[in-house]
Amino acid sequence: MAQAIPETFLDLFQKQAFANLGTIMSDGSPQVTPVWVDYDGKYVRFNSALGRVKDGNVRRDPRVSLSILDPDNPYRYLAIRGRVVEITQKGADEHINRLSQKYLGQAEYPHRQPGEVRVLYKIEPEKVSSMG
Amino acid sequence: MAQAIPETFLDLFQKQAFANLGTIMSDGSPQVTPVWVDYDGKYVRFNSALGRVKDGNVRRDPRVSLSILDPDNPYRYLAIRGRVVEITQKGADEHINRLSQKYLGQAEYPHRQPGEVRVLYKIEPEKVSSMG
Repeated sequence: MAQAIPETFLDLFQKQAFANLGTIMSDGSPQVTPVWVDYDGKYVRFNSALGRVKDGNVRRDPRVSLSILDPDNPYRYLAIRGRVVEITQKGADEHINRLSQKYLGQAEYPHRQPGEVRVLYKIEPEKVSSMG
Repeated sequence: MAQAIPETFLDLFQKQAFANLGTIMSDGSPQVTPVWVDYDGKYVRFNSALGRVKDGNVRRDPRVSLSILDPDNPYRYLAIRGRVVEITQKGADEHINRLSQKYLGQAEYPHRQPGEVRVLYKIEPEKVSSMG
């Protein structure tokens, strides 16, 4: 079921391209929010904090969708549907710092709130469409 | 229930900012795809074609979500949840041409396919969050 990201689109994960993450609310309606992402060669990974809406959503229903536009050409994009297959606090602090480095050029994530518990989510892509 | 877009964020609809539209598939999972949008002062409007996946999705379940990032500052964005309250072919050809003018600077939409029937969708915003 797992599908790889096409090699010709892997550059999107090197750029500061946001993913628009779709999740399912408790009433079955969609939620879409921008997130930072990276790709470890198998999983698309994002990072959030315990208790956030999207954290609750993917714990309830792991099915997600991502739209990632090339910031240099919005007509070139990836649309990914898949499933959150792992939710972990292990490595989540290192991961948000890594994303901070990628997106902000800052080695330490600067927006951490007191008491916030970071969480790392791994998405297995099941259907990948590319355009452009 | 209807909520207005904050005036301080109306400029997003003047820019060539894409909306990432979340809809619900028949199996209840989310789909997110980039769309062109405008705002008529009450409804956020997008345009698609009869028979497309998102067309079927919103006819089945009108609940949608939109993430619209400022192309000049991705940390400034709108997240809108709402409902498709009107689906019509009336004015849809004029509307896609208007979006083409906005996004491509071309008065006539250049990507029309033979036999394609354009459809205009009006979203009533019910929950609007802004960031940045």
